[in-house]
Amino acid sequence: MDRLSLYWKNATADAVGDKHGVTEKELKQIAPQIKDITKKMSDDRKAGKMKYRDLPYDEDMIEAVHREVEHFRDRCEVLLVLGIGGSALGNIALQNSLNPFTYNLMSDRTRPGPQVFVLDNVDPDQIKSIVEYVTPRIKRTIVNVVSKSGETAETASQFILFRDLLQSKLGKKYTENILATTDATGGTLREICNAEQYRTLEVPDGVGGRFSVLSAVGLFSAAMSGIDVDALLLGAAEMDKRCKDGDITKNPAALLASIHHILNNKGKIMSVMMPYSTSLYYLADWYRQLWAESLGKQFDLAGKKEVFAGQTPIKALGTTDQHSQVQLYREGPNDKLITFLEVEKFAQKLAIPSSMKHVKALDYLANSNFQTLINSEKLATEYALLESKRPTLTVLFPSISPEAVGQFLMLYEIAVSYFGSLMGINTYDQPAVQLGKDATYALMGKPGYDDLNKKIQAAVAKRDKKYMI
Amino acid sequence: MDRLSLYWKNATADAVGDKHGVTEKELKQIAPQIKDITKKMSDDRKAGKMKYRDLPYDEDMIEAVHREVEHFRDRCEVLLVLGIGGSALGNIALQNSLNPFTYNLMSDRTRPGPQVFVLDNVDPDQIKSIVEYVTPRIKRTIVNVVSKSGETAETASQFILFRDLLQSKLGKKYTENILATTDATGGTLREICNAEQYRTLEVPDGVGGRFSVLSAVGLFSAAMSGIDVDALLLGAAEMDKRCKDGDITKNPAALLASIHHILNNKGKIMSVMMPYSTSLYYLADWYRQLWAESLGKQFDLAGKKEVFAGQTPIKALGTTDQHSQVQLYREGPNDKLITFLEVEKFAQKLAIPSSMKHVKALDYLANSNFQTLINSEKLATEYALLESKRPTLTVLFPSISPEAVGQFLMLYEIAVSYFGSLMGINTYDQPAVQLGKDATYALMGKPGYDDLNKKIQAAVAKRDKKYMI
Repeated sequence: MDRLSLYWKNATADAVGDKHGVTEKELKQIAPQIKDITKKMSDDRKAGKMKYRDLPYDEDMIEAVHREVEHFRDRCEVLLVLGIGGSALGNIALQNSLNPFTYNLMSDRTRPGPQVFVLDNVDPDQIKSIVEYVTPRIKRTIVNVVSKSGETAETASQFILFRDLLQSKLGKKYTENILATTDATGGTLREICNAEQYRTLEVPDGVGGRFSVLSAVGLFSAAMSGIDVDALLLGAAEMDKRCKDGDITKNPAALLASIHHILNNKGKIMSVMMPYSTSLYYLADWYRQLWAESLGKQFDLAGKKEVFAGQTPIKALGTTDQHSQVQLYREGPNDKLITFLEVEKFAQKLAIPSSMKHVKALDYLANSNFQTLINSEKLATEYALLESKRPTLTVLFPSISPEAVGQFLMLYEIAVSYFGSLMGINTYDQPAVQLGKDATYALMGKPGYDDLNKKIQAAVAKRDKKYMI
Repeated sequence: MDRLSLYWKNATADAVGDKHGVTEKELKQIAPQIKDITKKMSDDRKAGKMKYRDLPYDEDMIEAVHREVEHFRDRCEVLLVLGIGGSALGNIALQNSLNPFTYNLMSDRTRPGPQVFVLDNVDPDQIKSIVEYVTPRIKRTIVNVVSKSGETAETASQFILFRDLLQSKLGKKYTENILATTDATGGTLREICNAEQYRTLEVPDGVGGRFSVLSAVGLFSAAMSGIDVDALLLGAAEMDKRCKDGDITKNPAALLASIHHILNNKGKIMSVMMPYSTSLYYLADWYRQLWAESLGKQFDLAGKKEVFAGQTPIKALGTTDQHSQVQLYREGPNDKLITFLEVEKFAQKLAIPSSMKHVKALDYLANSNFQTLINSEKLATEYALLESKRPTLTVLFPSISPEAVGQFLMLYEIAVSYFGSLMGINTYDQPAVQLGKDATYALMGKPGYDDLNKKIQAAVAKRDKKYMI
């Protein structure tokens, strides 16, 4: 298998100076910690506490995904995934990375699977336009609702709507067009599944939403659209193995995390992921959740000391954002670590024709190709940032293959585990999300939230005209 | 016209404390500066130095746009916009804000205009899939190439490719399928236009790319797709008028800029724009360029003192990013000012059916609607952030109309002008972009860049295996 690699020279002090880069001394100092964390991870894993790393080896899960694909594929023209956060971002990342840009516009004859829509918001206009789109195709529309509990307001409300639509159009047979990915045994959605007899897949136990892309949560829609999910998992397994090494110089996830940690402490409090590939752009969205929810924590691991930890993840797109963000990245505050994703071989090189060779200013483009151009732009930006002493990393994709994407996903999942341990916080919870959920319940009139509703009314619901312009 | 409004109470010291919010005293202190800047802007404008504000009144420009729409519309099934940065982001924002989510998937019969693709990258796989998509439709494909000079490598290479494709399929008549938006008189693309006799529109003089959405650059594709560009410009003009007032309490752009400036100085060095609307999400991308390129500056206005100014713009999407970023926004470092975009009336309320009323945990959703849900989620998030003392602003859209979007665009353009003046930097240049462009030329072998090429080879092109894992 072609290996993903990480190039880190331009994040070192040698490249950008001691103030902005990692020194050899700092890496030596952190090495024993990495060794300890690696040992602890290995112990935790044996105790069943790092289940996300075991997903690539879960044969029952993989078989269940293939079984459902087999069941639904032939009669599915449109696949609608209802989910949000960890139940959506992985699906979106896989679709965009591994299927053509025009996938949903391709004819049924040429497209390798159904059209796929991942509906991860509750915008009424957006949902209405999807309703209008699927209604004439409703017989061949499969709804994959993804929610561990079934109680997330966004997914629940979407599900109610589309279940209703299916029922009104298909009558009693509507259940045949639903696949629920949910908790194996408990929760509201599981109860509905039992009562209404849907087919189901499982949201794995002990795996947080943001670590669930390599489970049935992310794999079903990928496999439906023709993505080789076995190859994806092979890639993830390969990276998992590489990242068992306690030696920081041999473990890419540990090194990646260490560089981020050291530079975060030096004021690189933003971590920009900038793929030089339109397809890989949505990996950066997946990464945003992984980084933000895992690391953004008020308290230390013991839950006593206030630390307000976190590094803000930002997505950018090369070359596009050279014409939008690079001015700031070069001349603004030196507070960012920028990670490029670079593709060595695209599926296409795509020649630039020589038909404008007579125009002198454009002569240099003739007979080159777009692969050379985009990778030259990447190198040019790396150089320009280096000149401004801005630290950068490059994750090199040999090509955009399921194997490479699998490696990437596992690399960053393990890296965030290391980073959270280095920070001394709980990488796996998200306590701050609850208040917003409760406040939504309160505002929507769910019983039991009256007191909270009163507080919200007093604090924000009534707008003070004095502050309105 | 329904007015856009700004609600700023939750960015005040009263709401989040002196450390994180704007105090009355600070606003009073900044007021005379605002008065002076407003006066200077008015003078500059009379001297022809703020041309972007005059665009909504430029009747010749508007007439030219309508003329070209009239010319092309009936025979256009696919409109391909080739541009990058300021020549793309406005187009994308307008398409997404004001056309349905499924616009490109609608049938030719129901869609109010051609399919629109704005190709703002040089990803070979993406471009190849667009080539494959348009080839069978090439007769009815119109290419709108947008570039002031015609020398931007991305746009130039795309143009060479699609010009070649048109020529190979349509023969001599290929020029009839090209519209060039470029400099009125000079530059490489204008020369090509003259030689090959394309129809043209003008990139206005004295208006930087990131301020050009309300010119032919952004309006042509919008008008082609059925967006009411006259209403858009009316909205922009309305906002322009509101922002002439030197009184900070009456000028929304001045107030918006002042709050950003004061809070940036208090460590809110990131400015998150978080629309609670999928359609408005791409306004945040447009905003990212406006903020980053205008404010990210190494030197002060005199060009002498190093200031490394800037506030990092970040885009987020509500409710989606509640399940991705809000954990960090509430518990991570208190270093962000978050601006919500809220829509009071969506085109659809979209009822949530009552058919799952029997499921107790979901009962509260029955008979509500998605508009109420998404706006409750917004209020819930505003409340949760307030509880964590994180400053927020809300820009209220009465509805998603061309008038409202026009107001929004002008509001932020004027706001960044104020912000740049408050910072004491040059808001209108982008000196740091040039090195990356030159480095690309060097790597692509353009004559005259040999020395730079040697430097790049030495600095970054040859990867040091020692730093590769």
